[in-house]
Amino acid sequence: MATMNETMPTLAPPAPFEFKESHFSPAAYNLESSILRDILKYSNQPGVISLAGGLPAPELFPVEAIREACDRVLTRHGTQALQYGLSAGYGPLRDWIAERLTKQGGVHLTADNILITAGSQQGLDIVGRAFLCKDDYVMCSRPTYLGALQAFNYYGVKYACIEMDEQGMKVETIDPIVEKYHPKLIYTVPNFQNPTGITMTLERRRMLVEKARKYSVPIVDDNPYGELRYSGAPVPSIKNLGGQAVIQLGTFSKIVSPGLRIAWIAASRQTMGVFTRVKQATDLHTNNFAQYVIHEFVQDGRLERHIEVLKRSYHERRDAILRAMSEFFPDTVKWTKPEGGLFLWIKLPEHVDAAKLLPQAIEEKVVFIPGQSFHADGSGKNTMRLNFSQPPCESLHEGIKRLGRLFSAVL
Amino acid sequence: MATMNETMPTLAPPAPFEFKESHFSPAAYNLESSILRDILKYSNQPGVISLAGGLPAPELFPVEAIREACDRVLTRHGTQALQYGLSAGYGPLRDWIAERLTKQGGVHLTADNILITAGSQQGLDIVGRAFLCKDDYVMCSRPTYLGALQAFNYYGVKYACIEMDEQGMKVETIDPIVEKYHPKLIYTVPNFQNPTGITMTLERRRMLVEKARKYSVPIVDDNPYGELRYSGAPVPSIKNLGGQAVIQLGTFSKIVSPGLRIAWIAASRQTMGVFTRVKQATDLHTNNFAQYVIHEFVQDGRLERHIEVLKRSYHERRDAILRAMSEFFPDTVKWTKPEGGLFLWIKLPEHVDAAKLLPQAIEEKVVFIPGQSFHADGSGKNTMRLNFSQPPCESLHEGIKRLGRLFSAVL
Repeated sequence: MATMNETMPTLAPPAPFEFKESHFSPAAYNLESSILRDILKYSNQPGVISLAGGLPAPELFPVEAIREACDRVLTRHGTQALQYGLSAGYGPLRDWIAERLTKQGGVHLTADNILITAGSQQGLDIVGRAFLCKDDYVMCSRPTYLGALQAFNYYGVKYACIEMDEQGMKVETIDPIVEKYHPKLIYTVPNFQNPTGITMTLERRRMLVEKARKYSVPIVDDNPYGELRYSGAPVPSIKNLGGQAVIQLGTFSKIVSPGLRIAWIAASRQTMGVFTRVKQATDLHTNNFAQYVIHEFVQDGRLERHIEVLKRSYHERRDAILRAMSEFFPDTVKWTKPEGGLFLWIKLPEHVDAAKLLPQAIEEKVVFIPGQSFHADGSGKNTMRLNFSQPPCESLHEGIKRLGRLFSAVL
Repeated sequence: MATMNETMPTLAPPAPFEFKESHFSPAAYNLESSILRDILKYSNQPGVISLAGGLPAPELFPVEAIREACDRVLTRHGTQALQYGLSAGYGPLRDWIAERLTKQGGVHLTADNILITAGSQQGLDIVGRAFLCKDDYVMCSRPTYLGALQAFNYYGVKYACIEMDEQGMKVETIDPIVEKYHPKLIYTVPNFQNPTGITMTLERRRMLVEKARKYSVPIVDDNPYGELRYSGAPVPSIKNLGGQAVIQLGTFSKIVSPGLRIAWIAASRQTMGVFTRVKQATDLHTNNFAQYVIHEFVQDGRLERHIEVLKRSYHERRDAILRAMSEFFPDTVKWTKPEGGLFLWIKLPEHVDAAKLLPQAIEEKVVFIPGQSFHADGSGKNTMRLNFSQPPCESLHEGIKRLGRLFSAVL
């Protein structure tokens, strides 16, 4: 080993270096920042009621139970939880998830079917990376989840969009579109969809699974909200109906804490090898300590009790926003009535551009997300998404009152 | 909203679905699993001494201090730490990192120059995604860090390899290679390199920065081990010498805990927009709770004191392994004498294939990593990497004794 200089020299400020567009990969350079993140800036201004975010209610976070879980993990598994872990994730947590999904019926899953990811956004990215190449098609509904478009866009894909009605994606219309575009994946949020709050019916789910088999196109069943049902009867998940044909994304973000970034992919063993190698190249493995903490938290029925607390509170908020909309919105405005989840969807008269209403709404101190960004084809100008999980009932009432005033003035 | 079926139907087991190679993206399908992960299987077998891993010593993890940090974070910032966070990372942690790098001289950094990543492996992936396209060249030393090759390989790149000597990458030889291959990035681990343990001299660092400017090729200064120096005088970092021309990757994995997966990219503001959008599409943001916990842990000089503890212990281990090698290795075996870090590098006589010795080593209950996988061009058959941070001194002594016995038998 060479001997180094004995004292640290004083360094002159280095000359500047200019990065040009040509330094970057075009796919990364052209990624757009999420409109959500831009609008969320307004959410924190004093007096503003935000119906824009997709955040869980922070006052419901199980802070004390997480503290106890941290404590138990550090006492029992301190050195393991702070050490490097497996790319697939912490075994006992994967066991627990597999068992829970198996109990829902139809499929028999083990830890070998589960990959732990850093939130469902990483699940989407890993699925995109595993399957998608430039100019491939992804089939999705119109509208669909913005974060999925953002994850898949990097891979240079195009979208084959399917209309929705109040029963979810119009699955009966997809054959000619599959035959024309040969999509690599069918992407869907079947439960309380983000952004519309609509749930796909059992008939459509069965039909979708059938068509996925017929055309040999895997389904991505993105299911962050499935546990949060406030009314109506549960519907079996597409994963439980479709088995190996279905790659399901699940997450603890909406039922425990999004800040811990623990989610999972449940899929056929045939796909797990590729997913795990992708995960390894991407970030080695998910935060080990957070996996242990979540595993500790879910024990002894604690998760189920916490979900009941969330459902009670979000149920009230959903009812409050729906009541306020009936009271304050003009007749020409239509909206969905979700049976669960965090969002509902507004349709304004065809000629209205929701994005153009946003500056006036900000002046009225209420914010929403214009619906266009949830449309892969740029349509949907007259739509908007509202969130009802974060603001308490009174704020929902007041926020809808403000929006109603604005609608009445401009429509 | 349609009314759903009133009770959950009993589900029949779904028909199988076969994934074929054509379902997958070739870039993902052809990713190789890290040889390290395969060899590490042997490390946990009873009686095996592993010189193969790159793990910090688990008995040195600051478990109690992490427990206190968790506790304080949940008391003071519970709801914020468990909520969604910014894609760039937790502001106060980014401030702290920027200030610490600024104190090292040369550069003035702020939080706007720092992106928090889920470990340095994700830093490598984000850099790869931001800059690299299929058939681009990356310049790196031969050998170089395996995880970087794994991250960059997905992007379909080729490598322009530069020889190393005991002063690091032979920077004086790169001009014709840059002119021929026009690399998009120059990748280097200048401090106690993984795998060789070699540190690049100040003269070479200055020269590398000059050439990066001359050819307008950014340098990736991957610096996980810089804080772990046991002897010799410190050398200014390439980031501090090169400023905006340099993208530095730093991490808490080796100085606090790898299981928490908190690392950072320090770079020019011009690059931060692209990095942040890539991060957002990839996984929204890094585990928020872990960022708060690390930020709490590093306060009041706690990190500096902990680094001193690590250095004392690793210093002893480095001296123990070097002593054992002098005692037990035949004259025909050469090795590096690192001034810090976790690794050293062995050169066997030219005709020996280290990978072929591995099965015999496993029988002798000692494992190492054959050096070939650290060579982007498949050379380096007669080399191997040894780790000295994980096993205690007695195990290092015994492990080297076993390897020495094997070498004496076959060389």
